[in-house]
Amino acid sequence: MFRKVLIANRGEIALRINRACHELGVATVAIFSEADRQSLHVRHADEAFCVGPGPVARSYLNIPNIISAAMISGCDAIHPGYGFLAENARFAEIAADHGLTFIGPRPSVINAMGDKATAKRIMREAGVPTTPGSDIVASVEEAREVAERIGFPVLLKATAGGGGKGMRAVSEPEELPTAFATAQAEAEASFKDGRMYVEKLILNPRHIEVQVLADEHGGVVHLGERDCSVQKPSHQKLIEEAPAPELDHVLRARLHETAVTATRAVGYTNAGTLEFLVSGDDVYFMEMNTRIQVEHPVTELIYGVDLVKEQIRIASGESLGFSQDDLHPHGHAIEVRVNAEDPNHNFAPAAGTLTTVVFPGGPGIRVDTHVYGGAMVPPFYDSMLAKIVAVGRTRESAILRMERALDETRIEGVNTTVDFCREILADPEFRAGGIGVAWLPALLARRVATV
Amino acid sequence: MFRKVLIANRGEIALRINRACHELGVATVAIFSEADRQSLHVRHADEAFCVGPGPVARSYLNIPNIISAAMISGCDAIHPGYGFLAENARFAEIAADHGLTFIGPRPSVINAMGDKATAKRIMREAGVPTTPGSDIVASVEEAREVAERIGFPVLLKATAGGGGKGMRAVSEPEELPTAFATAQAEAEASFKDGRMYVEKLILNPRHIEVQVLADEHGGVVHLGERDCSVQKPSHQKLIEEAPAPELDHVLRARLHETAVTATRAVGYTNAGTLEFLVSGDDVYFMEMNTRIQVEHPVTELIYGVDLVKEQIRIASGESLGFSQDDLHPHGHAIEVRVNAEDPNHNFAPAAGTLTTVVFPGGPGIRVDTHVYGGAMVPPFYDSMLAKIVAVGRTRESAILRMERALDETRIEGVNTTVDFCREILADPEFRAGGIGVAWLPALLARRVATV
Repeated sequence: MFRKVLIANRGEIALRINRACHELGVATVAIFSEADRQSLHVRHADEAFCVGPGPVARSYLNIPNIISAAMISGCDAIHPGYGFLAENARFAEIAADHGLTFIGPRPSVINAMGDKATAKRIMREAGVPTTPGSDIVASVEEAREVAERIGFPVLLKATAGGGGKGMRAVSEPEELPTAFATAQAEAEASFKDGRMYVEKLILNPRHIEVQVLADEHGGVVHLGERDCSVQKPSHQKLIEEAPAPELDHVLRARLHETAVTATRAVGYTNAGTLEFLVSGDDVYFMEMNTRIQVEHPVTELIYGVDLVKEQIRIASGESLGFSQDDLHPHGHAIEVRVNAEDPNHNFAPAAGTLTTVVFPGGPGIRVDTHVYGGAMVPPFYDSMLAKIVAVGRTRESAILRMERALDETRIEGVNTTVDFCREILADPEFRAGGIGVAWLPALLARRVATV
Repeated sequence: MFRKVLIANRGEIALRINRACHELGVATVAIFSEADRQSLHVRHADEAFCVGPGPVARSYLNIPNIISAAMISGCDAIHPGYGFLAENARFAEIAADHGLTFIGPRPSVINAMGDKATAKRIMREAGVPTTPGSDIVASVEEAREVAERIGFPVLLKATAGGGGKGMRAVSEPEELPTAFATAQAEAEASFKDGRMYVEKLILNPRHIEVQVLADEHGGVVHLGERDCSVQKPSHQKLIEEAPAPELDHVLRARLHETAVTATRAVGYTNAGTLEFLVSGDDVYFMEMNTRIQVEHPVTELIYGVDLVKEQIRIASGESLGFSQDDLHPHGHAIEVRVNAEDPNHNFAPAAGTLTTVVFPGGPGIRVDTHVYGGAMVPPFYDSMLAKIVAVGRTRESAILRMERALDETRIEGVNTTVDFCREILADPEFRAGGIGVAWLPALLARRVATV
């Protein structure tokens, strides 16, 4: 096992990693920006180093400073969390060059899965179903040929894309030239990589993802699926649950099996997530996230497995301590993201001081947060303040528990998503289960129309 | 199911009941003293009534005001929580006379179990092993005869006793007259009932209790045992866990079976706890608590059952929705009581304003609390601020998790038991498991000696 782990992140996930390390008897080193000096992740770690000023490029993405902090403090491993450097293969390589174990998959795997066209090709070759479409297209003419073959509507996507950048939906042939040019320009600007590919646009699919764990000795298991279809118009997830409601058991088994096949095909190690679009009985591989996900707690609650501890154990060379047959989910879990943003104004992020902070507690409630009464929310980072997770024997009991948990939550000083999520939970369509990713944007559009 | 429940309590247990009611879709009415106006239990309930000034006799024990609040607000049931009126049969009767369902067993059962000599007799007749000793003794001479028959040391106990009052340990015959007189006087003063009985004093037994649920249709199940042997010199529990560590499986099965037998023998309904003293292979019934216990969460975490919801369901006439065969514990849970008191000064209670309050979170941690940053701790009530509960796959992982949870806990403004409990968890004897009730007092004595 490692002696000391540097946590290359901030916020709740830095705390989450700190918890896992301490429970494993591993010492921790936090890094922080000047804006995060008072953050809980700094207080809870055994040591902490300031790595730069507030803006991320100068602190949480500052590779030389982060590696220096790890070296100075005598770390033997780095946990990247999610976001920031978590899917940066170069960072993983640099860490390795300095004798630091990167807690995640090998850099070549991060690279292969980070390039979306490559990832799709690998999966297709492994027999994993992917959305109809192309590999990289050389020109707008080639994009048009592909689009006509698979039929409109299509998505133009940057292979280096992420967070909706370098992506355009195209309904008609005449929209294609402009869409291609602007998406490509956006990709060039954002990722310094303008390579594009074309994909069939699946209308209102469900976003269902499968959690996997793979050790360095050939052991691979899945930990079931999560339904993350409640997404903002920006495609950011807002409410996640496990298992996916109203999912046919044959389809569910097929998703799990496909995820394990894909994980083996890639030679994947550590914790990973395979994201699928599900439309009727069709399942399409979308992408693989080569890191821990924000929404991992819903899986932990129903499987009783600590995924972050498993990540650390796997990276230290341990074999999985269980097989697929040992893993049985119990009950239903649901997560709500409490973000400092205004749902009535296009989720505009808010910064400021949290004057009142009261989180829910009691049976079946887990809270992962880095904020407290009096904490400052700096303007530089992700707006997530907390994840509230509820578990119950059934989906209905988990939702009822979440409703009372949100009723108990009091955050004052900034706008949050608490009340809006309360509204979603009460919606009969959400309650029925099985909604697609277009559901929340449509709800928002209706809301705006009635205001 | 009930429409509206009055919660006749304060603090964390009032919140706990509020949570269960809301998750069942039942409206709630809180009561509060003038000192508790700002308490979370008042804010979270649907309605709230002030029932009197700070001192308990004038508020939380003020039966006419409490019944009036229930009537005015249109309640159909009362949940008494623990302490205060929870084991007051007269209160249960008055509630019934006003058409209010008392969420607990029948008054006659509360009375029978509240009178300790009667409870022991009933259990003995049902074949439940009890400590050797007498029924009520008429005089000090009769007490001496019993003591000589069962052998010294003995305990003189008031049948109406509780919280250590009206109880004396006697090692030698010559100590008996004085001990009898003072214990009896104390019982007269505290309970207006000076009736005494004699019991064999078991030296350093383990305190192990079994949770039961019984519906009004003959259904009885146990939910395993809790080990509550970490007790202050005042016999108040400080750390509890489930299951009991280092307990022979035959003995464990015998405890469970005995608890179910006892529950049936008493004609018990609702949630109850049978407290046993365990010494070697011997098991002795000590008393039955006819209410929810402070430490109920450790059982909930390993059985996945919401005991307070079950209490409400049972009182509303529902049958248990499961049988013994459906109940399987998973993992190990441990609870630490965070009290506003000074472990270095005989646990003297503290009152004041909590300037900083940060509770732990993340996987496997449950927090039940009514306090928050800025909350006032009034001087009138129980000093418990919070219960922190950790669950893990094994006892070791639950303890490690609790250690990191206590490390994360920051409460400023009053002295608390957090650091002291951290010390206990690190003690090799506690770690080994199976300690008796004399263990913590001995540790405290050694601590004082070395200061």
